[in-house]
Amino acid sequence: MDFQTEFKPLTVQPQEIEEKSFDIITEEFGPHDYPEEQYKVVQRVIHASADFELGRSLVFHPDAVRAGIEAIRQGRPVIADVQMVQVGISKPRLEKFGGDVRVYISDPDVMQEAKRLNTTRAIIATRKAAREAEGAIYAIGNAPTALLELIRMVKAGEARPGLIIGVPVGFVSAAESKEELLKLDIPFITNIGRKGGSPVAVATVNALSLMAEKLG
Amino acid sequence: MDFQTEFKPLTVQPQEIEEKSFDIITEEFGPHDYPEEQYKVVQRVIHASADFELGRSLVFHPDAVRAGIEAIRQGRPVIADVQMVQVGISKPRLEKFGGDVRVYISDPDVMQEAKRLNTTRAIIATRKAAREAEGAIYAIGNAPTALLELIRMVKAGEARPGLIIGVPVGFVSAAESKEELLKLDIPFITNIGRKGGSPVAVATVNALSLMAEKLG
Repeated sequence: MDFQTEFKPLTVQPQEIEEKSFDIITEEFGPHDYPEEQYKVVQRVIHASADFELGRSLVFHPDAVRAGIEAIRQGRPVIADVQMVQVGISKPRLEKFGGDVRVYISDPDVMQEAKRLNTTRAIIATRKAAREAEGAIYAIGNAPTALLELIRMVKAGEARPGLIIGVPVGFVSAAESKEELLKLDIPFITNIGRKGGSPVAVATVNALSLMAEKLG
Repeated sequence: MDFQTEFKPLTVQPQEIEEKSFDIITEEFGPHDYPEEQYKVVQRVIHASADFELGRSLVFHPDAVRAGIEAIRQGRPVIADVQMVQVGISKPRLEKFGGDVRVYISDPDVMQEAKRLNTTRAIIATRKAAREAEGAIYAIGNAPTALLELIRMVKAGEARPGLIIGVPVGFVSAAESKEELLKLDIPFITNIGRKGGSPVAVATVNALSLMAEKLG
């Protein structure tokens, strides 16, 4: 590639770059069985990761996309497990419906309580979120312990999430925590395997809020 | 997997989880040709992405790791292309040497200037960074236009980075911008292909600051 030619795209606007990217993704992804609304999430996850394998590993509870859109339109908060997820999520579309993005993992009371109980901050942050935010969307991209705690609380009737986006990345407990999520019969979006991460959680929430916005 | 058994790891401390993860990575990665200090970066990128293919796609300028460690120990700033990279980078180890992490993409003057010139905010943010921070480490996980502009400025003698970490993800210009970076004879860390992203940029900086810290 010639560097001078490459200079032309510099004035391409982000919106055009995104559209071109989505065309490439659709072309290379080929035929699939995802319903249209689920595919919008898959597409945006591939856009954020450039990883088709990761895109194909996504699994949706049949009610997940509808529940996510509804939670956003009701102004329910999005709970991020870490700050990287919080800052990545596009806020204006959530705020339009009265929603916001919260992260509890660095709250002083969470840090103190985790130390006292000799457990992870992610677990204590999940408990705090469940107390404060009924019907929320949980966007978990990093901490398997947050996802496992949320699953435990759902089973115990201590948490009632609107949607669980459970896509922690990693080698210890990440894949296993997703297997547990798959057994729940409440709205969830997850993926099979070790991959995942903040950009996947972010892309999923952003795809949902775009669909929520389109409904007007 | 039984859910009750899975509950035991909940009290595992983050440090132990990380050590166990690194053992798994080393075992599955197998024999390789990376020098020890480069492998520490590869390992941490795989840890952040659970993607061995991505790890194996990393390419280092021979002087990259040494230059990165030196920049950190001299308290040079780290310039992040987006906020997700900024919040992900571990601050205490940089601050110990007088360094910090900066992001310019949402500065009002950057947004205004990008609009005026009908170009991307990433380009204007890169120019601002080059004016304000000589010898900095650039951590670019998202914006190919930021990387292309930085390469242009280096060639024109307008920017003198200490290290360029160029790992933008995406389908339009990302892989091409990395090919251009590979042609420079200044310290860089990049990867071949479309993959990359904020967690890769973050993991690379964190691996370097851990090595910088170990030197005491």
